[in-house]
Amino acid sequence: MTDWTIDSLAGAIRGGKISPVEATEECLARIRRLDPRLRAFITLDAAGALGTAKALEVEATAGRWRGPLHGVPLAFKDLCHVRGLPTSCGTRTPEYFAAEHECTAVGRLTDAGAITLGKLNMTELAMGPFGDNAHHGHVQNPWRPGHVSGGSSSGSGAAVAAGLCLGALGSDTGGSIRLPAACCGIVGMKATYGRVSRAGAMALSWSNDHVGPMASTVRDAALLLQIIAGRDPRDATSSGRAVPDYLAGIDRGVSGLRVTVPENFFFQGVDAEMAAGVREALRTLEGLGARLRESRVPDPQVMNDVCGVISRCEGAAVHTRLYRERPEELHPVVRARLDLGFRIPAHDYLQALRLRARLTRAFIAEVFAGSDVLIAPVIPEPAPPLAHATEGPIAELVQRQSHFSRLTRSFNGLGLPALSVPCGVSRSGLPLALQIVGRPFGEATVLRVGHAYEQSAGWHRRRPPLD
Amino acid sequence: MTDWTIDSLAGAIRGGKISPVEATEECLARIRRLDPRLRAFITLDAAGALGTAKALEVEATAGRWRGPLHGVPLAFKDLCHVRGLPTSCGTRTPEYFAAEHECTAVGRLTDAGAITLGKLNMTELAMGPFGDNAHHGHVQNPWRPGHVSGGSSSGSGAAVAAGLCLGALGSDTGGSIRLPAACCGIVGMKATYGRVSRAGAMALSWSNDHVGPMASTVRDAALLLQIIAGRDPRDATSSGRAVPDYLAGIDRGVSGLRVTVPENFFFQGVDAEMAAGVREALRTLEGLGARLRESRVPDPQVMNDVCGVISRCEGAAVHTRLYRERPEELHPVVRARLDLGFRIPAHDYLQALRLRARLTRAFIAEVFAGSDVLIAPVIPEPAPPLAHATEGPIAELVQRQSHFSRLTRSFNGLGLPALSVPCGVSRSGLPLALQIVGRPFGEATVLRVGHAYEQSAGWHRRRPPLD
Repeated sequence: MTDWTIDSLAGAIRGGKISPVEATEECLARIRRLDPRLRAFITLDAAGALGTAKALEVEATAGRWRGPLHGVPLAFKDLCHVRGLPTSCGTRTPEYFAAEHECTAVGRLTDAGAITLGKLNMTELAMGPFGDNAHHGHVQNPWRPGHVSGGSSSGSGAAVAAGLCLGALGSDTGGSIRLPAACCGIVGMKATYGRVSRAGAMALSWSNDHVGPMASTVRDAALLLQIIAGRDPRDATSSGRAVPDYLAGIDRGVSGLRVTVPENFFFQGVDAEMAAGVREALRTLEGLGARLRESRVPDPQVMNDVCGVISRCEGAAVHTRLYRERPEELHPVVRARLDLGFRIPAHDYLQALRLRARLTRAFIAEVFAGSDVLIAPVIPEPAPPLAHATEGPIAELVQRQSHFSRLTRSFNGLGLPALSVPCGVSRSGLPLALQIVGRPFGEATVLRVGHAYEQSAGWHRRRPPLD
Repeated sequence: MTDWTIDSLAGAIRGGKISPVEATEECLARIRRLDPRLRAFITLDAAGALGTAKALEVEATAGRWRGPLHGVPLAFKDLCHVRGLPTSCGTRTPEYFAAEHECTAVGRLTDAGAITLGKLNMTELAMGPFGDNAHHGHVQNPWRPGHVSGGSSSGSGAAVAAGLCLGALGSDTGGSIRLPAACCGIVGMKATYGRVSRAGAMALSWSNDHVGPMASTVRDAALLLQIIAGRDPRDATSSGRAVPDYLAGIDRGVSGLRVTVPENFFFQGVDAEMAAGVREALRTLEGLGARLRESRVPDPQVMNDVCGVISRCEGAAVHTRLYRERPEELHPVVRARLDLGFRIPAHDYLQALRLRARLTRAFIAEVFAGSDVLIAPVIPEPAPPLAHATEGPIAELVQRQSHFSRLTRSFNGLGLPALSVPCGVSRSGLPLALQIVGRPFGEATVLRVGHAYEQSAGWHRRRPPLD
């Protein structure tokens, strides 16, 4: 399905040019051919997908359309509960993750006509930014074998990039949507905290967790977000704010929009090619009329550290039973990371929560008083070799993880919408990416900037060399 | 001011029978006469009160009325910030409790015409149920010298009972409004969590804290609650739910209302006279048409323990700076209690939060499916001698504190409205009291039951033997 977007495929199905069954069969064929190598899927539900596709085809023939995704094959990170399919959360103990309800975001997409191909690979318990998984196979980067896909929504990144599905859901606690999107050359969005329900998705650190769309274009990401955003009574943290029409203004361009380019932190210690790619993207946006302003922003490393305390504590609380009853089932690095969470005193956690709130108010006031978006790299270098993620002493592996996610994590604590968009391919053949961050509930502006850049630069038309 | 209620005084002022200045002077005279013994006030603002009273008198003469409390003298627990007055929170380090804003509840009462007499004594940092305070003097029970007033809103309980003011604000994290109300023979109400803003009041355990009214009758408590209840943008946990008219239906009686009388826990280990007083009150309500049903309720001790973990952690987080910088300023028992909070791992705190939510759903479903209110004692025995609260090894004092508040604490974790109403006087001359607990936001029903009982039993007319 490499030539289709969600938008074009949905249109083609509606126009009778391709049927839901044909679309599904094309995806299944690609999965059978490519996935033994890519390891993007944990559970493939070919029969279920074809059954749904046939039902949708009958309905389409009768002129009945479920919604804007009628007949579009998607797949979901294996921490989203999907009726009838197991949920592993990347572990080999799916029995620990039984759910009463389907994931709300999944339900909204299938209600809109999407077809579920299956459940996608991920870092075990979503704890790690590279996407390696010793239990279900390390996800391979579609652009270059032997390199990581980024994580933790690794299967989502690889599957969309390789055209195994048209779009996917990922989750993002410290970058887990944006990192694989950046590594795999696709688009990934973490909306404002509370914009998308997390009900029916495994919690890792509930006050930093976000569920969001991954797709091959900004328009497709906007389309998916449009469907999954909005209040959900099953997630008390979901916002009741009205959801704007993200597609309506997406073509309005960036003329006059004010862009903060951080002077500190975000370009430091970043690979030269990556930094140059993002700078080039900024020049493109400037050419389109955006007004750039370099300025210092409140130190993101403080927020990274604060989020680290919070995530470790909440992660330990979420997984206490698994950790206590079946520690030997967990990968040593994941166990080591969980272990940290059990050693933090409650008052440190609570101080971290209070500090996070203060830092957030300060960051928003300082950065967004005078600008509409902030733009920075997503990852400090293109997707590294798998050995970088899997070989070495545990403490060093944890250190590498922390380094690789250091440009994304602060935006989880800040709760701000952040979009990853491809902005080139490195000499080694791996994607470069920029991160567009907006003010709270400023998704429409973020998507507009991403779309304007993407349409001008055209990197979304470049595909990984798989075929 | 022993013969007035807020309701009758406000009416008399409006009818020209007594002036705001006369009312204030009468309170100040009583305070000067009785408070050197009772120790209810930490800060008396005689000049400020008289100044306000004169202004209100001028307005009244001109036919301008600020609101339903025009000219009524009140006083506030010394953890509520009041413009122009210091806030000690019961410590000797008021410099740790500077505030930007006045307490919202105080502001609403004074906007309604109330006069601020001053700030009331309390247990240091609100950490303790007896009301002793080594820094500002142990509050004495107006009914019997040498006995505790109950705490932590000890000054509020004693001041209202002794007629030093017409009503007061207290705060309640584990019983701190209901315990002194019960000990001092007045009415105290902790409304549903979120019903009354806590902005501008010292946090102790923000997820268990409540601010609420203390007064000499249920109608007065309803009147104060009516004014302070409702959404406050400065307290994110305050509820946006409409505030009903608590006074409109307060006279409707209890005919047909279903009352749960707990079989387990609440009458066990309770002093015989106290238990008999509450049973007698239940018979009075039955005589008025209420339908009693004895039944088991989910074990409140589990919730007590869960709330203990949460309160200790949040208390430690709130007071970290004071505890670290000036430990020697804190009473050893308070320091010991704070100390516990620093030793709890974050995941235990988080598990406690999760357990609290589950227990709350279960309790409400089980108890309030078939009944309108639950009735139980407030305190396990009448107010004990001060030595019981102050003499003995620290561990034993903490143990006694825990025992004395064991009937109230669970309702903080449950977030349910709970009202303490006098129901007799013991042979030793100390008040007995019953606790009326309602469903979430069921304040109107709780107040109606309390008022019906009070008017039938008449204990509110019995005054402490001070004059």
